[in-house]
Amino acid sequence: MAASLPEPEPLSDLVQALKRLPGIGERSARRIAWHMLQRDRAGARQLGHALEQAVSTLRHCTLCNNFTQSSVCELCSNPRRDASLLCVVETPADQHMLEASHGYQGLYYVLMGRLAPLEGVGPGELQFDQVIKRAQDERVREVILATNFTAEGETTAHYLSETLEASGLKVTRLARGVPAGSELEYVDASTIAWALMERR
Amino acid sequence: MAASLPEPEPLSDLVQALKRLPGIGERSARRIAWHMLQRDRAGARQLGHALEQAVSTLRHCTLCNNFTQSSVCELCSNPRRDASLLCVVETPADQHMLEASHGYQGLYYVLMGRLAPLEGVGPGELQFDQVIKRAQDERVREVILATNFTAEGETTAHYLSETLEASGLKVTRLARGVPAGSELEYVDASTIAWALMERR
Repeated sequence: MAASLPEPEPLSDLVQALKRLPGIGERSARRIAWHMLQRDRAGARQLGHALEQAVSTLRHCTLCNNFTQSSVCELCSNPRRDASLLCVVETPADQHMLEASHGYQGLYYVLMGRLAPLEGVGPGELQFDQVIKRAQDERVREVILATNFTAEGETTAHYLSETLEASGLKVTRLARGVPAGSELEYVDASTIAWALMERR
Repeated sequence: MAASLPEPEPLSDLVQALKRLPGIGERSARRIAWHMLQRDRAGARQLGHALEQAVSTLRHCTLCNNFTQSSVCELCSNPRRDASLLCVVETPADQHMLEASHGYQGLYYVLMGRLAPLEGVGPGELQFDQVIKRAQDERVREVILATNFTAEGETTAHYLSETLEASGLKVTRLARGVPAGSELEYVDASTIAWALMERR
């Protein structure tokens, strides 16, 4: 957009700040700024306050790396969870989905990302030493790698399994196969290939 | 997303606040929240501050309705602009484009929207009485309607022209026709039809 028009500084500042959000470009930033100033000033104040609160009160759980207000999160401090199982996921969303399955009672480690060398995300950026250290807690007997079944998720799982197995831990990966409730006709070929290979 | 996992309140609050932004759903809100907490806390603080500043310092120019920090904006208080021309646009972005064309030296009125009865935006919501009042400033000789050439923009222009003409003002509309630099073969049929009808 041509900058031929004088624009008030607080508006330019707001547009610049919105552009830092992932997936928001110049045009969307401007639309969001105008919308909030024109139609939802209460929402703008609410968001400003929520950002301030979140940044100043949320930190990482020292055990699972998920966001929490205390030093150890609610899930990690729940004595009913099975401390011998540690499930490694990429994001809090993945952890949500595993919890929603009601199939897991162990603990988690949230990587907050996955290896992506092209984006400059290596083992150092993901603090892999923390995962390894966490897994070497003497109570963990099995580490379940539940990273995504994408190229990057698989690379992350591969890298982690090598390091963890080298330190003598039992390492497993979520099973690949045909999704529950699906008809074979509509499942993609590589999923069928995996399901055949890993038949039981 | 299943809410089976306890989530710290400041994080839920942030997700809720982000969901109020236009075009941001639950998943995007979560991704943005995690991204900012994980990778860009400085950006989160900057956005919080920018929102607060924008909401507390920006108001509408009493003449053109655009956002400004003073009661009359820079453009409206520029004595070199031709006060006999008033151009009505939908958004500040449209005003930007007209300024970028360097083809206009008059003043503006920014509607901050367009008539959209299905979304509950009528003449009242757009404060059409303000546009009429502004146009009846005794210096304005011509009102140029530069709303978009969409169904809603055309409706808005039609509605405004009837009211403004009734009060004795000269009302014009931006010309429709073949875009500059384009080859007829690649121009859509309704544009060609308009260009034929409005040939000169």
